[in-house]
Amino acid sequence: MSFREELRPGDVEAIGALVARSGVFSKAEIEIAVEVAAAGLSAGPASGYRFVLCDGHSGLAGYTAFGPIPATAASFDLYWIAVERAEQRAGLGSRLLAASEARALALGCRRLYVDTSGRADYAPARAFYERRGYRRAATLEDFYAPGDSKVVYLKILPEAGAP
Amino acid sequence: MSFREELRPGDVEAIGALVARSGVFSKAEIEIAVEVAAAGLSAGPASGYRFVLCDGHSGLAGYTAFGPIPATAASFDLYWIAVERAEQRAGLGSRLLAASEARALALGCRRLYVDTSGRADYAPARAFYERRGYRRAATLEDFYAPGDSKVVYLKILPEAGAP
Repeated sequence: MSFREELRPGDVEAIGALVARSGVFSKAEIEIAVEVAAAGLSAGPASGYRFVLCDGHSGLAGYTAFGPIPATAASFDLYWIAVERAEQRAGLGSRLLAASEARALALGCRRLYVDTSGRADYAPARAFYERRGYRRAATLEDFYAPGDSKVVYLKILPEAGAP
Repeated sequence: MSFREELRPGDVEAIGALVARSGVFSKAEIEIAVEVAAAGLSAGPASGYRFVLCDGHSGLAGYTAFGPIPATAASFDLYWIAVERAEQRAGLGSRLLAASEARALALGCRRLYVDTSGRADYAPARAFYERRGYRRAATLEDFYAPGDSKVVYLKILPEAGAP
């Protein structure tokens, strides 16, 4: 499977379906993912969003959306990462994340942030980031809802010893 | 001076000038303030932004921009607050902030967040929030630039004992 950075018209719908199938995102979050993809398709890099996409045998297998945080010198947000369940065990998430970090680094990113939830059902997501060099930079209690905190992870690029 | 919530066409330019005169915001930040105002003017509440504005004797004397954080139950961001220097000593900042908190509360806000800088020249801004019941919820080191952290303040609404 190969990665690409250019969005195609069918990707907006495919991204919405991929994010919905993951099962962990709310309807509002799925709408945001679709809006981000639509903005990237219509405005390109001027949208503030960059993408890494991976096509599998039956359509979009995974993608990331990331971009520079306005009014910062070198901070980026990883807004989205979603991977088809069957591809998760094959390590596609790691490869998409590594490709996105490399692209962000080339675009001037030195600090890559990712927000996730402190909820129990997000434990695999938090472990995913922690195994890949992200450290917890902040926790905002009850941010998403009572009992649902926002956890901000940070990876400083390039990581010491990274290729 | 009276407060209003509806943006008028001249406000977008006036907000840009007001924010620029404050002297603490970068060019990129001023552009963001103008974009937020333009979005609010063209799309109204559907933009996600709400405003409280105050007209003085010689034009816009101060304003705030705030709104619900997407995909949260009851969290809002205070995106902007700017007050004409001559009106700061007269307490306009406090009154604008209180009016914005009351409006946010009426719109369902229970947690109001505001991001500011940890830089020395933002010490008056941090003291302003701290005196008004905001507590430091997180600090992200080097977020804006090396040596320039992001400080996230939070006020839980309604504050105990608030009128």
